[in-house]
Amino acid sequence: MRSVSLMEVAPRDGLQNEPAELSTRDKVELIERSIAAGVRRVEAVSFVNPKRVPRMADAEDVMAAVPRGAGVSYTGLVLNPRGMRRALEAAVDEVNAVVVVTETLSQRNQGCGVDEAVRNWAGIAAEARAAGVRTTVTLAAAFGCPFEGEVSAATVLDLAARTLESGPDEIALADTIGAGTPDQVETLLGGLAERAPGVPTRCHFHNTRNTGYANAVAALRYGVSTLDASLGGIGGCPFAPNATGNIASEDLLYTLSRMGVRTGVELEPLLESARWLGDRIGRETPGLLPRAGAFPN
Amino acid sequence: MRSVSLMEVAPRDGLQNEPAELSTRDKVELIERSIAAGVRRVEAVSFVNPKRVPRMADAEDVMAAVPRGAGVSYTGLVLNPRGMRRALEAAVDEVNAVVVVTETLSQRNQGCGVDEAVRNWAGIAAEARAAGVRTTVTLAAAFGCPFEGEVSAATVLDLAARTLESGPDEIALADTIGAGTPDQVETLLGGLAERAPGVPTRCHFHNTRNTGYANAVAALRYGVSTLDASLGGIGGCPFAPNATGNIASEDLLYTLSRMGVRTGVELEPLLESARWLGDRIGRETPGLLPRAGAFPN
Repeated sequence: MRSVSLMEVAPRDGLQNEPAELSTRDKVELIERSIAAGVRRVEAVSFVNPKRVPRMADAEDVMAAVPRGAGVSYTGLVLNPRGMRRALEAAVDEVNAVVVVTETLSQRNQGCGVDEAVRNWAGIAAEARAAGVRTTVTLAAAFGCPFEGEVSAATVLDLAARTLESGPDEIALADTIGAGTPDQVETLLGGLAERAPGVPTRCHFHNTRNTGYANAVAALRYGVSTLDASLGGIGGCPFAPNATGNIASEDLLYTLSRMGVRTGVELEPLLESARWLGDRIGRETPGLLPRAGAFPN
Repeated sequence: MRSVSLMEVAPRDGLQNEPAELSTRDKVELIERSIAAGVRRVEAVSFVNPKRVPRMADAEDVMAAVPRGAGVSYTGLVLNPRGMRRALEAAVDEVNAVVVVTETLSQRNQGCGVDEAVRNWAGIAAEARAAGVRTTVTLAAAFGCPFEGEVSAATVLDLAARTLESGPDEIALADTIGAGTPDQVETLLGGLAERAPGVPTRCHFHNTRNTGYANAVAALRYGVSTLDASLGGIGGCPFAPNATGNIASEDLLYTLSRMGVRTGVELEPLLESARWLGDRIGRETPGLLPRAGAFPN
């Protein structure tokens, strides 16, 4: 595959669990910088309980301040009807509904079981369709659960089939804890291609165990439409123990660019922004390119 | 491919550029630990000028102390006739001769041009054959040069053809500065398979830009026989600017194990040894598994 779309998730998944707190203005600058580099999809915010995820409490303020137009699509993560109402009021372009594949993480992440999450998703899908908002449904912990361990491909694909009944515009597989390997990517994307041949796929990888970039390359090989990545490689789920950073946007783009895969995103401004983000959060980010530099220089 | 051999290179490539100095006794323990975990090939030492690479000055002492037998093969890196004499006296099982693919890094790394390095390799091969010692020839900077930039596949494969004339038991491609991407792995291993279908291949990846593990998975897909890795992910060439660690043995093994690829090596003792090595060198090693833990636990 010679082209892939990138979804920048640093403003949401990157910052939601970050010890440093960025101001709304800095969050908006982070988004503006991504757009300036060529990114056209941004997971900007989540509409979740601010008591549980305080870093996302300013979601409405962020959405009110981001630049609109220029073909940029803003996604907000939603888990339930309440979040959906906030998302519509904030005028997101897409909503990202999450359904966790295991009961235990579902309860810990969103306070309800898998069945209720599927029903929530169905309601979200109906409301979004009525409002003309695109939908993406993300199957979380699809490559392994921090509480229940191995997750079979059958479990993931059965749940995929259930969520596909509500007609998402896209379906995503998330390796929430960074446990997955390229053969799982192949199996799961192959399974989705059989069950929903017309539905675009997105993958969301964390690099907790140094498998994230190999998984991204595997996903590319198996026809993924969009890859999530987080500037600087920051991020992690607050409700999954030991979850660490997403794959870094700049490191992923380095690999893709050198492989001749078109993304529409330029490396130099992204690298510069990764360094800016490191300064803002006051620590060395997990991505390696800001230290190593691109090649060739 | 469902099996691959692992070469542990921490004792040589890992430690040669490490700020902390390990005692000979600790180097031997590092090797013993790898063997106890199931590793059967170890790049134990290099026989190079101790003034230029002081960390390898005790090569003879290390080789005198390592446990022999049990099917373990010890490799020593050699660059010239003088190094070869030392390697034979130290009774290594294999010698690893390095030929750099670019003039500039060849001069900086071993003080001679590419043509002279090829002649040195031919001499080493002849002596090794006479002594009954296995040979591997490594093409360094095969994925890019820190001084000359991009290296074409034709350059690498032409040099491969020249080194293959001396009949190595194995030919290796080294991404000395961690710049390579999976498509390069495919092109180069594909080219070697055409030019030398009977010769086993080995790949040596650094994770400088987070491409190392994706490259290893690609190499596996394209039939590599052996993958180099360094416990803890330590390492780097002293004569290549910004060169950072090798792919970490424990992280590579995690990926391979979860993919069902047989290596004969066990993860738990390797992980324990990576933590031990971090204590010994007094810093957090770049490998991620010691922090994240294996999955499932």
